[in-house]
Parts: sequence; C-alpha cells; structure tokens
Amino acid sequence: MLQQMLKASRQAQKTLALSPANKRNQILETMASLLAERREMILAANRKDIERAIDLSPALMKRLELTEAQLMRLIDGIHVVIRQPDPLGQGEGQRRLPNGLTIEAVHVPLGVIGLIFESRPGVAIEATALIIKSGNAVILRGGHEAMESIRVIVDCWQDAVTLSGFDKELVQAILDPDRQYVTDLMHLNGLDLLIPRGGPGLIQKVVKEATVPVIETGVGNCHVYVDNMADVGMAVDIVTNAKVSNPGVCNAAETVLVHRDIAPKFLPALEQHLSSYGVTLHADPLSRHYLSLAVPATEEDFATEYLSLDLAVKIVENIDEAIEHIARYGTKHSEAIVTNDYTRGEYFLNAVDAAVVYWNASTRFTDGYEFGMGGEVGISTQKLHARGPMGLLALTTWKWIAKGHGQIR
Amino acid sequence: MLQQMLKASRQAQKTLALSPANKRNQILETMASLLAERREMILAANRKDIERAIDLSPALMKRLELTEAQLMRLIDGIHVVIRQPDPLGQGEGQRRLPNGLTIEAVHVPLGVIGLIFESRPGVAIEATALIIKSGNAVILRGGHEAMESIRVIVDCWQDAVTLSGFDKELVQAILDPDRQYVTDLMHLNGLDLLIPRGGPGLIQKVVKEATVPVIETGVGNCHVYVDNMADVGMAVDIVTNAKVSNPGVCNAAETVLVHRDIAPKFLPALEQHLSSYGVTLHADPLSRHYLSLAVPATEEDFATEYLSLDLAVKIVENIDEAIEHIARYGTKHSEAIVTNDYTRGEYFLNAVDAAVVYWNASTRFTDGYEFGMGGEVGISTQKLHARGPMGLLALTTWKWIAKGHGQIR
Repeated sequence: MLQQMLKASRQAQKTLALSPANKRNQILETMASLLAERREMILAANRKDIERAIDLSPALMKRLELTEAQLMRLIDGIHVVIRQPDPLGQGEGQRRLPNGLTIEAVHVPLGVIGLIFESRPGVAIEATALIIKSGNAVILRGGHEAMESIRVIVDCWQDAVTLSGFDKELVQAILDPDRQYVTDLMHLNGLDLLIPRGGPGLIQKVVKEATVPVIETGVGNCHVYVDNMADVGMAVDIVTNAKVSNPGVCNAAETVLVHRDIAPKFLPALEQHLSSYGVTLHADPLSRHYLSLAVPATEEDFATEYLSLDLAVKIVENIDEAIEHIARYGTKHSEAIVTNDYTRGEYFLNAVDAAVVYWNASTRFTDGYEFGMGGEVGISTQKLHARGPMGLLALTTWKWIAKGHGQIR
Repeated sequence: MLQQMLKASRQAQKTLALSPANKRNQILETMASLLAERREMILAANRKDIERAIDLSPALMKRLELTEAQLMRLIDGIHVVIRQPDPLGQGEGQRRLPNGLTIEAVHVPLGVIGLIFESRPGVAIEATALIIKSGNAVILRGGHEAMESIRVIVDCWQDAVTLSGFDKELVQAILDPDRQYVTDLMHLNGLDLLIPRGGPGLIQKVVKEATVPVIETGVGNCHVYVDNMADVGMAVDIVTNAKVSNPGVCNAAETVLVHRDIAPKFLPALEQHLSSYGVTLHADPLSRHYLSLAVPATEEDFATEYLSLDLAVKIVENIDEAIEHIARYGTKHSEAIVTNDYTRGEYFLNAVDAAVVYWNASTRFTDGYEFGMGGEVGISTQKLHARGPMGLLALTTWKWIAKGHGQIR
C-alpha cells in the first residue's frame, strides 16, 4: 500500500514542484479559509478523540487537545508561511567558468516527505503548510489517539489542494492504526526524507531503524547557566519561564547550573519562586546548603529530560565547568547563559555546541513560530542539513544547472 | 586507539574553530610551500608505492600515480581554496523578534571529519585543504597501497599546522593497514561526519554499516541525451569527451540516449569517432541498425557504471522517454542533454533529478576544481546537506545565536 501512496505522491509532487509560488500560496490561502470555516467540525472531531482517550496521562491529554486559540494560532501560522519568500528557484553560487560554462545551484524541493508524529493534531497543519509551500508532497502518520482530528484536517488539506487545481495525493495520511505501517514507512524505498516528531522513544526508534534519510529532532536536555555576573531577578525569571511555562516540551530547561559566587543569593530566591509552581528541585550536595526543600540529585538526574515539574541544580566553579557539563549531558538543543558580562556572554555563545544558544533569554523560544518561520516541521538536533527549527529552506535541496554551448574537458 | 585520536582531534579543532580566517589560510599557505619544497620527496614516496603495487589493474595504477603535473594542480587548488571567502562566522536569517530578541544563524565548522579513500593520494591534499579552511579537523584513512605517499603528505600537513601555531592533531591519519580500523571509524561515536570517497563497493559498505553521520558520494551512472534538435558535431564531441577523457571516474558518461529522428545521422558518426578510441558500444536492437561494430545491450548494461571504455546506446521515442530512462537507471549524479531547442533544454534541466544537469556540455565538469571550489571532499549524490561537488560550505553547519535582555515566553 505504501508504495502505491508514494507513487501517487511523487506524481502529484512533480506538478507542484514546477508550479509558481502564487499557485502554492493559493493552496495555503484556501486551507486557512477552510480551517476557519470548518472550525466547529475540527474541534468536535478533537473532542471525540479526547473522549476516547481515557487512559492518557494529563501531559499527553494536553498535547492531544486542540483548543480554539491554538487553531487560530495555526491559521495565523499559515499566513506567516504565505508571506515567507519562496524558497524554490533561488539561485546561489552563480558563476561563469573560464571556458564560458555557466553554473548555478538552484533550490528545488526534496520530493516526498514522511512525517511520523504522536498526539498533537496541530502538527498536521503547521508541518504540512511548510511542506507544501516548499513544493513537496507529504505522507502523514499520526498517533492513533488523534485519528479523528487528523482525518478532518487531512480532508481540509485535500479539499484545499484540489480547489487549487492540484492532485489530492499531495497530502496523504496513513489512518490505519496497524503499527506495521510505521515500520514500512521507515523502510519505504524512494521516500526522500522521514521526520519523526514526538518523544525520545519514537525518535530513537526511527533514527536507529530507518533505512530512508532521516533528520533527528527534538530531544532537549536543556540548561540555563547562571553566571556570577547575572542579574538575580532576571535569572530567576528566565529559569522559571524555561521550566514552568510548558514543562512537557523539548525546549523546556531541565538543569540549572549556578556559579558558586552567586549561589547564596540566587538559589534561595529561585526556590521560593519555583516552589509556588510546585517544582521539585534535584540538587547536588553544594547547592543543598542554600535550598531547604530540594531532594538529592544523582548522576541520573543530570542526564534526564524530565519533561515535568522537576529541575536539576548544580553549583559550578566557573563558566568552563558549566560548558563542560553541557557538553557532557546536553543534547545540542537549546542552551542559555544569564550574565551581564560581555566577554563571558560571547565566550559561552561561541563555545557551546547546540542548535540554539541564548544569552539572557529563556530557552523556550526555540520554536519555528517564535522564530518567524510560521511554524516548523521539527527541531533538528543534528548538524547535517538542518539545525534548530526546520522551516522552508530545510525542506529543499538544490540542483546545479550548467549551461554551455558545446564545452568539453 | 581511535577514541584517543578523536579526543586529540576535538581538542585541536576547538582552537581552529575560533581562529580568524587569516590564521587558517596561513596553514594552507605553508602547506602549499612545503609541497613545492618537498616535491621530490613526495614523488619518490609515490614511486615506492607504485613499485610495490605490482598486482594492481592499470586503472587502479593510474589512480595511485601522483604525477608532477597533478601535484602542481593540487598546489594551485590550495591557492584557490585560500582565495575563497571564509565560510565561518557568516550570519544568515538575522532578525529581531517582536519582543526584541535578536536571532541569527551563524556558520560554524562541523567538528571532526573522517575521510575514507582508496588509492588516490591527492585526496589527502585537496580534501584536507577544504576541511582545514572550514575550521574542521580530519582523520584520514587511505588505501594501504598509497601508504608511503599518504605518510609524506600527512607529515607536510602536520608541519604546516605546527608552523602556523596549531596542534598537529588537526590532521591525523590511520596508517596501520589493519582493516578493523575502517570498521572502527564507521562506528566512532562522536565523529561529526564520515565521507567515503572511492568505488561503489566502499561507498555502499560505509553507507550501510556506519552508525556515524555519512554523506553518500560518487557513484555515477551518467547519461547524455542527444535530442533530434542537437548539432550532430557538438553531440559527437560531448559524448566522446564524456566517455573517453577519463573513463575511470564517476562523472564519465555510461549511456547515450538518442532521439530516433537523429539516430541515422548521429550514430554512424559517433561510432566512427569512438572506435578510434577503442570504445565498445553496447546497443539496443533499434540502434544496432545504424551501428556496424556494436554488441547487443542487455538490461544489465543500462544499470552498469562501466568505468571503462564501454558505452551503452539506446534509441528513445522522445525526450520524456529519455527522462524516464534516467529516472530509472541514473544515480542522480550528472546528466546531460544536447539540443538547440530552448524549450526542450529548459524542460530537461527542470525535470531531471540529479546533482548536476548539463545543457550542451560534457558531464565531466562535475568536479570541485572545475566548479571553482579549489577541489572537493567528494561529490554528494544525496539530497540532504550537500549536493554535487562538496566545497567549503558543505563542511559547515550553523548555530542559532539569540541575544536578549531577559526575554521570557
């Protein structure tokens, strides 16, 4: 079945790839209108998913839920994507070789993209908008708990696609809950890219097992380093926001590293603030001197992406110890320093190896919508091809076009 | 042992990554001087390799040989790399978010790169020059038949590196012929990229077995399509050059596809020309009407990268049949059309999915030196991260740098 879907995808994608930007934007405009028109139907389908999902944890339930406010933001995201410059056809590296041959690297779509995600139905809207705008076709596979929501969203996409004069197979979904299809998708010969978007279990499974090209996304064991030259109030606000504003997502902070000279002032203030949100601190022996409610941290704590109201705490001697700790336990996702010292700020930005490095800001901004991309297809934690929130350019490759008049070598 | 090498590499690379372009160029300047100074020593080492390599085929022997002319071209290539703009530190996508946070994607080195190659010792010069200029360290593993040449070249690199004030571990080579080291390199946890450069056997082995990030390079089953609107003389020259100028390399043509209307004029002219070079034509039944010396082609012929003085020939009904044939048998490396018809030329450039697509030129130009990059670390045939000849930018990734003054979400 998947080979049939892929064949239909590729056929539909060929036409899209050669279409001008205004035709691709028309699909997105139509989709934005359909989502607004069919708002009630979409929210009702989502309520059906939620009613059936009685066994889910509160965190998963929160991800499964699609609120009206979220839907409005997703529609807004589509409009942001429409306003982005066309990623296709842009030439780079144009040159005329000494023999008169002209060469140019032209951005072209990747082709057919598979997207495996878990319970968040909004992914089927935000990722698909980027995929279509960049001239690609998509095969979606969402978590079975979100099936009703996904079905309605994919219907909207297929209507938007056909109303704009393209084949509906540009957007297809595997709605059969049989898990064999996930395995088949990971081995679907000819698929140009497979993106897993979800928890660490899903991502590691796909990265290890897939034989098609994959981009690793999303596992975030993120740190905030509070330097002794930090403003204590700012540091408390940043750590609090990075921990509590949405603890279940990959850009939430999991460990705070504290310069020993600022610990006596900073840690009690932090504890007071975080305890009101119900956060449990897992602290190393040194920092427990300044914390009354913390539990002892083990090596395991520093290696864990909690995704919950837990935060590991460690006192460091200096900025280099913080950087070493991050190199050892981090997942190259998002890392932050809070300091008012210029040299230390620049040093941290240069020395830390991660997709996004922050100076005096919360790690929570690592997000395609926040970055002005209108959304993201995932947050890449690898170094090749794409890094950080994946927008339109991450969904393209290029082709060298060489034009001559009989040149030989 | 490899973990120790990697650790030393990473340490040396950290300093290089933060060094300005003139310091990195100084290493290359010094290397170019040392290669010229030690020319005799290098050529003598290469002669020693050749004397020992009594069992090699003539094609392999040709690859192993490093002539003085090639060495001069490699030195010239280093100077071209020096003149290339610095790929590091360039910011892209700068923007100030509505909340005042500024973000910017800054190009940074990949880190430590492994390069597995076969008998061509020049690879240790051209690829390393690009790797160093882009702020990376390298672990080289060449074919054991080229060991003497590689040893002398790596000595030059280490001298160039230390004379420029960096740690010699920036350039390391595995000189022990034990094949276990190749396997170990493919599983060297923490290696940022492994590039296989050689024949299809090596490349497929690395792509399949490696657990570190790999870029697939170089297998080229390349086609020239001769349209009925082609200039016959130009078409004969292009096909001849693409086949005979260096049959053992990946950008050589392996099949010529001929529009049926031009076959009666083109094929006899081609046969006359190619027979003087000793090329054997493997032709489909239709084209054998116009060829007196050809042997019958089987399905197998169209799927084969000959890398020898053999050429498959097939008559097609029209340009679409040519494009379909290329989609079926091609390896997405280099594909060419010869035509004077504007619409067909543009159509072919758009419709064919390959790293480089040529209009009225030989496929032999797919080469980093020809493309003005000063050389290449390999020719990528995949779509992710790099496509075609890999120059400086292919050896970088980027890091998002976000600067704020206390922004939270």
